[in-house]
Amino acid sequence: MKLALAQINPTVGALKINAAKIIDLIEEAEHEKADLVIFPELAVTGYPPEDLLLKPQFISENLSCLKDISAKCRGIAAYLGFVNRAGKDLYNAGAFIVDGKVEEIYHKMNLPNYAVFDEKRYFKDGKKCSVVSYKGMKIGLGICEDIWVEKGPYLEEAKKGAKLILNINASPYHVGKIRERERMLGARAKNTRAHVVYVNMVGGQDELVFDGGSMAFDPKGKLIAASDQYREELLFVDLEKDRMKNKWLDELPEIYEALKLGVKDYVEKNGFSDVLIGLSGGIDSALTLAIAVDALGKNRAHAIFMPSEYTSGQSFQDAKQVSLNVGVEMIEIPIKDVFSSYLYTLKPHFKEKPADITEENLQARIRGNYLMALSNKFGWLVLTTGNKSEMSTGYCTLYGDMAGGFAVLKDVPKTLVYRLVGWRNKKGNVIPESVIKRPPTAELKPNQKDQDTLPPYEILDPIMQAYVEGNKSAQQIVAKGFDEAVVKKVISMIDRSEYKRRQAPPGPRITHRAFGKDWRLPITNRYREF
Amino acid sequence: MKLALAQINPTVGALKINAAKIIDLIEEAEHEKADLVIFPELAVTGYPPEDLLLKPQFISENLSCLKDISAKCRGIAAYLGFVNRAGKDLYNAGAFIVDGKVEEIYHKMNLPNYAVFDEKRYFKDGKKCSVVSYKGMKIGLGICEDIWVEKGPYLEEAKKGAKLILNINASPYHVGKIRERERMLGARAKNTRAHVVYVNMVGGQDELVFDGGSMAFDPKGKLIAASDQYREELLFVDLEKDRMKNKWLDELPEIYEALKLGVKDYVEKNGFSDVLIGLSGGIDSALTLAIAVDALGKNRAHAIFMPSEYTSGQSFQDAKQVSLNVGVEMIEIPIKDVFSSYLYTLKPHFKEKPADITEENLQARIRGNYLMALSNKFGWLVLTTGNKSEMSTGYCTLYGDMAGGFAVLKDVPKTLVYRLVGWRNKKGNVIPESVIKRPPTAELKPNQKDQDTLPPYEILDPIMQAYVEGNKSAQQIVAKGFDEAVVKKVISMIDRSEYKRRQAPPGPRITHRAFGKDWRLPITNRYREF
Repeated sequence: MKLALAQINPTVGALKINAAKIIDLIEEAEHEKADLVIFPELAVTGYPPEDLLLKPQFISENLSCLKDISAKCRGIAAYLGFVNRAGKDLYNAGAFIVDGKVEEIYHKMNLPNYAVFDEKRYFKDGKKCSVVSYKGMKIGLGICEDIWVEKGPYLEEAKKGAKLILNINASPYHVGKIRERERMLGARAKNTRAHVVYVNMVGGQDELVFDGGSMAFDPKGKLIAASDQYREELLFVDLEKDRMKNKWLDELPEIYEALKLGVKDYVEKNGFSDVLIGLSGGIDSALTLAIAVDALGKNRAHAIFMPSEYTSGQSFQDAKQVSLNVGVEMIEIPIKDVFSSYLYTLKPHFKEKPADITEENLQARIRGNYLMALSNKFGWLVLTTGNKSEMSTGYCTLYGDMAGGFAVLKDVPKTLVYRLVGWRNKKGNVIPESVIKRPPTAELKPNQKDQDTLPPYEILDPIMQAYVEGNKSAQQIVAKGFDEAVVKKVISMIDRSEYKRRQAPPGPRITHRAFGKDWRLPITNRYREF
Repeated sequence: MKLALAQINPTVGALKINAAKIIDLIEEAEHEKADLVIFPELAVTGYPPEDLLLKPQFISENLSCLKDISAKCRGIAAYLGFVNRAGKDLYNAGAFIVDGKVEEIYHKMNLPNYAVFDEKRYFKDGKKCSVVSYKGMKIGLGICEDIWVEKGPYLEEAKKGAKLILNINASPYHVGKIRERERMLGARAKNTRAHVVYVNMVGGQDELVFDGGSMAFDPKGKLIAASDQYREELLFVDLEKDRMKNKWLDELPEIYEALKLGVKDYVEKNGFSDVLIGLSGGIDSALTLAIAVDALGKNRAHAIFMPSEYTSGQSFQDAKQVSLNVGVEMIEIPIKDVFSSYLYTLKPHFKEKPADITEENLQARIRGNYLMALSNKFGWLVLTTGNKSEMSTGYCTLYGDMAGGFAVLKDVPKTLVYRLVGWRNKKGNVIPESVIKRPPTAELKPNQKDQDTLPPYEILDPIMQAYVEGNKSAQQIVAKGFDEAVVKKVISMIDRSEYKRRQAPPGPRITHRAFGKDWRLPITNRYREF
């Protein structure tokens, strides 16, 4: 049997456009003499449609798209995801289409409602598994979570004679997840002695990145075919013949590509042509610019350098060099005059209070205003440049460096920023050595260093990661050998910065737990572990 | 039997403080010779604890608080909410405590996972109802949603002989909900021929306001006792004797008090002493200031007036008058110099493009910066002043008038702003007639009126409410008699403003559907009904 794995990038809500794309690929697969073409979970609506699912009209239109799709599905079978409705209940559903008709509808039985998932808000769980017969083959149907759970429907389907298990997905990326998927799927194939075919979505949707990497396994659990990550692909698989040795991306390129796709899709699906980035001469904004240029091309990225009296000559040279390296013109707007004007008008109201964080934040907010002014004037999307270490500790200014539409490094800790820069520089030097070597500084007051306020990033990051991503308690983190006072300081900074994160722009999720859908802490929260 | 309904205001995460408060009230109720004291749902943790529930340490500490509470519960019984754990599973639970011991633990059977609720993210559902015998009375236990569902556990409990049904709650306010509760609870009592006792939480928690209004019903469904809304109360009820004619607040005072409590608790539970409000001379900021002063007192509210060249003399007079009326000194900082300085430095980069929304937003952002500078310098919380009509259509500036910690009128449409002002003025004139009479204007360019950009609020608001709160389709709204072009314009503005709302501060929810937990639309969303 010849299968076509249609790893597509649908857009949430673009029902007709998604349907047209599906129909095109059905026709292409039929033309290439495939027997069966398989699309991702909720391919018709995009994933996650969130509260669009509460609109009855949206559900009706998705059903009418499914009708159009099935009418065009001739000479080939298809399995694809859509939203089914029965009375008032909705289902995360898969349609198996043969000869222009929906022959079987499967309802997802295991609805994830943890981490970034809220499926029980919308869907009822299906109650029975589905095995269809097609061209002499018994085929078991499933959707995403169904194959992750130990006793999922695939088991019963195999018992009922299924020799091919189809599993369609909208599985969001995090570091190393592709290898978890491969291990789990191989085990399922081996266990059921069936072919297992896994089709994933690809593309960015707000904070989520779907990385693709669709796969097929033989009944011994061996991978026999795999799509690339991060791009649309129609992959043909001959179940009897295909054999391959897969090569997934290594960690750093895997992350870099996820960030690129996240940026590209946020920009393009939201209808922006260009992006704008504030360059500081530091490493975060340099990496953000490199990712933007790699994702969109140098003609669609703009850089602006906004020096103050605390900005060093080195920062100017470094920012300039980064712009030159990526081929982007750098606009320069000094913030000095506006800053003086603010200070002058505020003086009588500050009542002789000494300079403090106020004046630092004010500089960051002036820069935010300049970025937004250019954004408004030219319709460019502002990309913010803060990293996860800053976002977690609140070492960032609301409406200042946090001002913008998409936060590229929001889920990238500072130490990983350095590693990504190291990797990116190997492919062509974009970020000068001096940027990498200089101690990080916000340059908002004389001789300021990040490390005046924060523990060194080599200590901060593992503590932050244990607390945020690993969900460890303070006690557990101290038990790993970190200094108790430092742990207390870091956790306390994280706990108290919730209000900032609540007003932060979204950014691509690359870890097990990002500041987004999978981090839902109250702002008003008096719980302290110390 | 003499009951004590302990309508308390716990703080999320403040486990020990909440437990101490519970113990105090148990002792007071015992001293007053009550037989049984009843506390709200999740009284130990506060509601909703959200992802704090994912911390095993948090659960352990809540269990240890329950132990402390039960040890102190002597000479009286208590029923209260806490988080129970069994293996890896968590339950939204109620403990029935007698003589220093937890005699029965009930697990909530119906977990809400819609609107603002995410209980299935954290809890497993209980599988059996609970009837305890105490002082010769059979008592059925339940938690919140359990009594809303038609075939809830109260039915089986009544069949098993329960003559008293206890239902503990963390039920968030929306307009008119107290009357819905009364109707439903009366019907349940009548239906089961049992006394029904409903204890609600009170207090603000981020966007939610719990309005209290605890109630007791006799077996005929008659209300025999009720707590006030919006304040903590230990209400004693003699099931055999008490009779009352309840008087809930009317619509406008009910809403006003909800906003006051929302503000007060956000400010105080987050440790702020004072608040700061930008006064424009318009009605929204005037109402916001009045609410803040009513909630916190005039010494804890600060007003700042930031005129531009487009600010009319009338605006100055009106802002001044409002400040005088509420007894708050008004600081004045003109934005002209800073604005000129921005324009001068931006001129070469704007490439002769005509003035547009950019310059308008810039003024709003300068004001945002001033507010945040004073906030930073003095530790005051900025209250934003935008209303729901603006928040829905995006008629507001990110990092400008949207800059601040709490958005008092976020869920109040403009037409309701006028009605609230009318009601508040009757209790003492705070907002001058000229503020009410003048056509709304942002004063960001010459002769600007809101109605240049937006349909009249009398038309905009019902369309917005049908779409946002009523979840109606464009077609359904047009069918109500609204002009199709206007409906299209309003819906399109709402759909396209999601990115702004995602970076907005929280604000108190007073309607059936606010822009917060119960509005989860993707930013990247190509679904359009037209």
